[in-house]
Amino acid sequence: MPHLVIFYSGNLDEVTDLSPLCRALADTMLAIRDESDRSVFPKGGTRVLAFPATHFAVSDGGEAARAKGESGELYFVYLNLRMAAGRSDAVKQTIGEALLATARHFFAPLIAQHRIGLTLQIDESNAQVFDAKFGNLHDLFK
Amino acid sequence: MPHLVIFYSGNLDEVTDLSPLCRALADTMLAIRDESDRSVFPKGGTRVLAFPATHFAVSDGGEAARAKGESGELYFVYLNLRMAAGRSDAVKQTIGEALLATARHFFAPLIAQHRIGLTLQIDESNAQVFDAKFGNLHDLFK
Amino acid sequence: MPHLVIFYSGNLDEVTDLSPLCRALADTMLAIRDESDRSVFPKGGTRVLAFPATHFAVSDGGEAARAKGESGELYFVYLNLRMAAGRSDAVKQTIGEALLATARHFFAPLIAQHRIGLTLQIDESNAQVFDAKFGNLHDLFK
Repeated sequence: MPHLVIFYSGNLDEVTDLSPLCRALADTMLAIRDESDRSVFPKGGTRVLAFPATHFAVSDGGEAARAKGESGELYFVYLNLRMAAGRSDAVKQTIGEALLATARHFFAPLIAQHRIGLTLQIDESNAQVFDAKFGNLHDLFK
Repeated sequence: MPHLVIFYSGNLDEVTDLSPLCRALADTMLAIRDESDRSVFPKGGTRVLAFPATHFAVSDGGEAARAKGESGELYFVYLNLRMAAGRSDAVKQTIGEALLATARHFFAPLIAQHRIGLTLQIDESNAQVFDAKFGNLHDLFK
Repeated sequence: MPHLVIFYSGNLDEVTDLSPLCRALADTMLAIRDESDRSVFPKGGTRVLAFPATHFAVSDGGEAARAKGESGELYFVYLNLRMAAGRSDAVKQTIGEALLATARHFFAPLIAQHRIGLTLQIDESNAQVFDAKFGNLHDLFK
């Protein structure tokens, strides 16, 4: 942890490649610093994973868009960061705004050409009753 | 938001097509009205996304079913609606029952022929510390 | 419920097959017993679903690893069990340790050869406002 998960309508793969977005969001997370100028997210623990939905239904299915003479193809992207609890409100806001800026920048050309809805939400892990990390990724940065 | 995410064992794609289910669930959500006869879910913010699991293990792997002379192929579908907090208990119950009725109707012929477990859960976003929406989908319905 | 969901970087499919892990984790869950020697998880309600991320970014993208002469290919696996609330702290700990042992055993040969980060988290369903189960899987075990 933290991890950022992206769920999106699979039709988006026909008009863009989300791999650079994943990298840009991870870099954004790694660059965030707190009030004491320390990294908020550890290098070995930062990851962004994006999953295309194989089947999906967005909004009214394109009816209103077609009535306006558009193609009716609708796209949807949900970005969800899950992070440990305990950070300050200011840091949470900084994280949210930084990720939002990166996502807005990436999607701007797509929004100019397509009908896309995007939601970015950050959750604190408040329901967690067990948490273990293993492997050898953190060792790289010791 | 809201969004409904469906996680399912990938073998289900061999016996059905979940795209019409996604559409039916989205239409169900769009039709729900509250005590004041207002739409509970906004058109521009309603989406259903379904993800087949590439690898999975369901129950005992089919042992008990094979012992009864069945094929032992088991299927599982998890439907999870995440929605903003603050709705009345009555509305929550209405939403749950409406989605359940749509899912039951869709899966009835499959349940008649296969071993399928299904779970439908609705969560309120109670861990959310940042929430942003962007794009141009909501504009369609203004 | 319960269900265990695995989100992982898609490159992992090139070096291993997660299907046996799913089975091993389900078997681990089915074997767990509480203080009264009763099964913690019902047979008909236990499932493990694994989803490869199509697009992903892990850590620094491999920069530090390449600087050490490694390939720079990084892998990430997130295992998340969601279960109903109300179990004792001892049982939660037992569940977490049992799943962790199974995952450690499965991944040991991979960790010996690759850079992999793994996180296992268990959440209690504390935000749930509607919960329905249907289908015919539980009937197998009555």
